[in-house]
Amino acid sequence: MRPDTTDDKDKIKIAIVGYGNVGKGVQEAIARNPDMTLTAIITRNVERTRKDFLGNFHTLKIPCNTVYDIKDVDSWKNKADVAILCGGSKEDLPKQGPYFARYFNTVDSFDTHANIPKYFNEMNEIAKANHSVSVISTGWDPGTFSLERVLADAFIPEAGHYTFWGPGVSQGHSDAIRKVKGVKDAIQYTIPIQEAIDRVREGGSPALKAKEKHKRDCYVVADKSEQARIKKEIKTMPNYFSDYNTEVTFVTQEKMDKMKENMPHGGFVLTTGRMGNDRNKGMIEYRCQWDSNPEATGNILVAHARAAYRFSKEGKTGAYTILDIPAAYLSPHSKETLLKDFM
Amino acid sequence: MRPDTTDDKDKIKIAIVGYGNVGKGVQEAIARNPDMTLTAIITRNVERTRKDFLGNFHTLKIPCNTVYDIKDVDSWKNKADVAILCGGSKEDLPKQGPYFARYFNTVDSFDTHANIPKYFNEMNEIAKANHSVSVISTGWDPGTFSLERVLADAFIPEAGHYTFWGPGVSQGHSDAIRKVKGVKDAIQYTIPIQEAIDRVREGGSPALKAKEKHKRDCYVVADKSEQARIKKEIKTMPNYFSDYNTEVTFVTQEKMDKMKENMPHGGFVLTTGRMGNDRNKGMIEYRCQWDSNPEATGNILVAHARAAYRFSKEGKTGAYTILDIPAAYLSPHSKETLLKDFM
Repeated sequence: MRPDTTDDKDKIKIAIVGYGNVGKGVQEAIARNPDMTLTAIITRNVERTRKDFLGNFHTLKIPCNTVYDIKDVDSWKNKADVAILCGGSKEDLPKQGPYFARYFNTVDSFDTHANIPKYFNEMNEIAKANHSVSVISTGWDPGTFSLERVLADAFIPEAGHYTFWGPGVSQGHSDAIRKVKGVKDAIQYTIPIQEAIDRVREGGSPALKAKEKHKRDCYVVADKSEQARIKKEIKTMPNYFSDYNTEVTFVTQEKMDKMKENMPHGGFVLTTGRMGNDRNKGMIEYRCQWDSNPEATGNILVAHARAAYRFSKEGKTGAYTILDIPAAYLSPHSKETLLKDFM
Repeated sequence: MRPDTTDDKDKIKIAIVGYGNVGKGVQEAIARNPDMTLTAIITRNVERTRKDFLGNFHTLKIPCNTVYDIKDVDSWKNKADVAILCGGSKEDLPKQGPYFARYFNTVDSFDTHANIPKYFNEMNEIAKANHSVSVISTGWDPGTFSLERVLADAFIPEAGHYTFWGPGVSQGHSDAIRKVKGVKDAIQYTIPIQEAIDRVREGGSPALKAKEKHKRDCYVVADKSEQARIKKEIKTMPNYFSDYNTEVTFVTQEKMDKMKENMPHGGFVLTTGRMGNDRNKGMIEYRCQWDSNPEATGNILVAHARAAYRFSKEGKTGAYTILDIPAAYLSPHSKETLLKDFM
């Protein structure tokens, strides 16, 4: 359903920090949300970004003088209501999150699940001190899948919940590989293991280890002399790869470029449990399928920028996750429209 | 995941208003949520309820002197934190909602979609005046399906969303039939039309009328002499049946009792749309399958009673829907557990 248009002066002003795949996905998403406008792209590499941005110019009718150097704080610090941080979770966000929360309300997709509580506390403290709102760890997982896990657990108490990803490209894991010394480029495919899906659908609430549910296929561009060390570093990387059956295949840059043309992804959260007096079963399945993972993440980040802006306008400060945000705050529609057309 | 236990004195005290199928579903749900306790059943028919309640006694270790006559206000008015209103939308809730919001925080499953805005405004005014919180129109549709429609629309802007129900028993529609003069008993099966599902899955965002998506099969117990009039009244009933292909079949009470032993239901919300620069598709599918519709509704109502209680403790007043409630408020788990185990 098409949302109402918004006067230019009332549009939410968005800054994109980091102009990679997710940054471009955010740019495209802003163009589809008439209550938003892109007012700044903040980057470590202005020249490359200006060139890339012109390449994407067909989508957005915005002059490219909106590109700012990340180091030139005075040039960008008053340019937006919300900064959407599009860097990686491994090296960018742990620094950029706390840094940008000093200047803007922020939204990010920090996705190192094990470190979310620590990152939340850090962002909460900084955002409160700066009277800003920071929505952390959103996208589809963590993000919408986190939300669905919590909802299904509330509606089927003590249910077992199972998350499966793929087959598709994980940006977080691809990014983590690219940070390994000597890696020129990389892409990671997450493959759900069908046998595990079948066991869950049978309803027996099986106990499944990470490696029984998914395997991780990594494709890497690197010099021959570095490959043995790189392979070992990837396979033993904690949080990302060490708990999985991980395969590493080295490919040419040409092959890599071809693989990166499409970045589909998807997955589902499956929750099953007993209800009432144990006689009856309940099942909830949430599934998404994206032709473009970065565009899907971009769309979800942009909806959360709307919520961050609205929270901030209400005087809220600190860190929030999707679990703290009512759905109405994510929607472009008015309360009246939601009650009339969506309930 | 099992939530922490709660000291008896800190448990949320719940009153059930109306002890039919949904009331019993709520009773069973309370037994599965260790932060809640059932402190009152409020009914128009104390004798029948006491008998029914004893029949369900195996689930809850609660003496049956918790059953109160709806007319004896002084006996029940201070007995609970939240009243869960389990009556029907057609005749009970329009009166009971405003009435009980004077005494308690309330949760209900008012499901006449077309009248939700009006009911919301009425409940909002009364709840604000009485410093109480009223969560209206929750269950799985309206309720979780409403939430999923809003979320998917926010994450895939301008997407088409399609809701299919069944095959299964609609309590709201069964209840509406039972209000027709001369009807002794009734049950209504909602049947999704497979051809419509197939068209949506193909991704073409077809425009589908209500009658192209579902048919409604009604089974009714009534005296022969009344059947022609009853059939006509059902088929022409606005909001419930007039927009559908509705079939009415008369059966014996014996056959009816057999049909009512199981009340499975389910359905899904399917959202498809274009993303980015129109090149790519996105799809979100939310599906639930319940062996017992009343138990599922009971579970969802109970989670919302938790949210109503927490909203009230924070000093909020007025009417709310599931669209206004952060998921964390529905969950029995602490913020720390949610960040650590669910994100």
